[in-house]
Amino acid sequence: MKGEFGVLEKILSKDLIKNLSIREYHRGEFLLALDERKILYLLEGTVYAVRYHDGEKIIHPYFFKPNQFIGINMYLQKDIRDWEMVAATKKVRAVVLDEKFLEEHMFNDAKILRFILERGSGVIRQGARGFFMRSHGGAKVFFAFIIMSNSVDGKMHFLKYNDIAHVLNVGRSMLYKLTGELVHEGCIEKNKDCINILDEEKLKRYYEEYMY
Amino acid sequence: MKGEFGVLEKILSKDLIKNLSIREYHRGEFLLALDERKILYLLEGTVYAVRYHDGEKIIHPYFFKPNQFIGINMYLQKDIRDWEMVAATKKVRAVVLDEKFLEEHMFNDAKILRFILERGSGVIRQGARGFFMRSHGGAKVFFAFIIMSNSVDGKMHFLKYNDIAHVLNVGRSMLYKLTGELVHEGCIEKNKDCINILDEEKLKRYYEEYMY
Repeated sequence: MKGEFGVLEKILSKDLIKNLSIREYHRGEFLLALDERKILYLLEGTVYAVRYHDGEKIIHPYFFKPNQFIGINMYLQKDIRDWEMVAATKKVRAVVLDEKFLEEHMFNDAKILRFILERGSGVIRQGARGFFMRSHGGAKVFFAFIIMSNSVDGKMHFLKYNDIAHVLNVGRSMLYKLTGELVHEGCIEKNKDCINILDEEKLKRYYEEYMY
Repeated sequence: MKGEFGVLEKILSKDLIKNLSIREYHRGEFLLALDERKILYLLEGTVYAVRYHDGEKIIHPYFFKPNQFIGINMYLQKDIRDWEMVAATKKVRAVVLDEKFLEEHMFNDAKILRFILERGSGVIRQGARGFFMRSHGGAKVFFAFIIMSNSVDGKMHFLKYNDIAHVLNVGRSMLYKLTGELVHEGCIEKNKDCINILDEEKLKRYYEEYMY
């Protein structure tokens, strides 16, 4: 099927593309567990990167959207291995590129490596930007940014609503207060497994002064 | 002189090394201005990345230390061009690798590209980690981390002391209060153009629970 493998079709030969396979994951399933040496190319759904702090708490997820590579920085930088990647939407589809494939067909080619890397650290930067907003603008500014930057087709999916409280570093009651405010202002609508964006412009106004 | 060019000697041929030149910069001088297409390899001194927000304010510097590449993410990712790199110590020495040199001798070689990239996004991650501490642990925790992670030989240099207030997102009086506390606790000593670390273990204890 044309374009089924996204940007991979631009950088790999037809023969290699033919041999790629697509894996399906369901909500809550791990795409990448600790110490796995592979990267993924996301085709459908949302994935987030979670970390465990003090054994239990999930802290600041980075989110991935279709057409992004997942795990590239972890793969290249041997000192970061403490993130896991988990499916946040009902259905996630991704191409798994294992170590053998990466070393034989992708990372020994400067053009391909560069192509991937030009797209690679966007998620880390998005995280850094988000933390800047959190520390300079506060939880509501950060919440608005999180919703906007992690939505696909106007929806931000989550695994458990309380995950968002961990990301914002607020308690459950503050999360519901902030959600209520954004709903009341007509910015969003909250559903069982996602937030629907109703007014992008209003949400943007919260964080645009902290944007870089 | 043996080892003069640090890791560059590992990745470039002797002929290329012979033609490299070292530039010297003084405190406050820009190593990389907006829209310059080059990267630098730092040999001596400390450099920080500054951004201007609302025309005036300097926000969160990332710091660079000897043997790091400066500007690599900006070079590869065409959408980030809003950082400038400024010398924070009296004397800074760096090898300038311009676009022509990078494209002809470094970035068309997968091994070299990968070598650089394995070391490339450390500074961005350090920034993200710092912001996590700032938002979850507060200004003093972040201050302790900034001092530790940006020091060379036990000293953290700065251009103006007030720059640190901007990094911590506190006012001048809070910066002096926090400095006074760390001095009083025997963690640091403040000089005209640098902070001297007196007790690394005590400083680490502030932020270790937020470390990842």
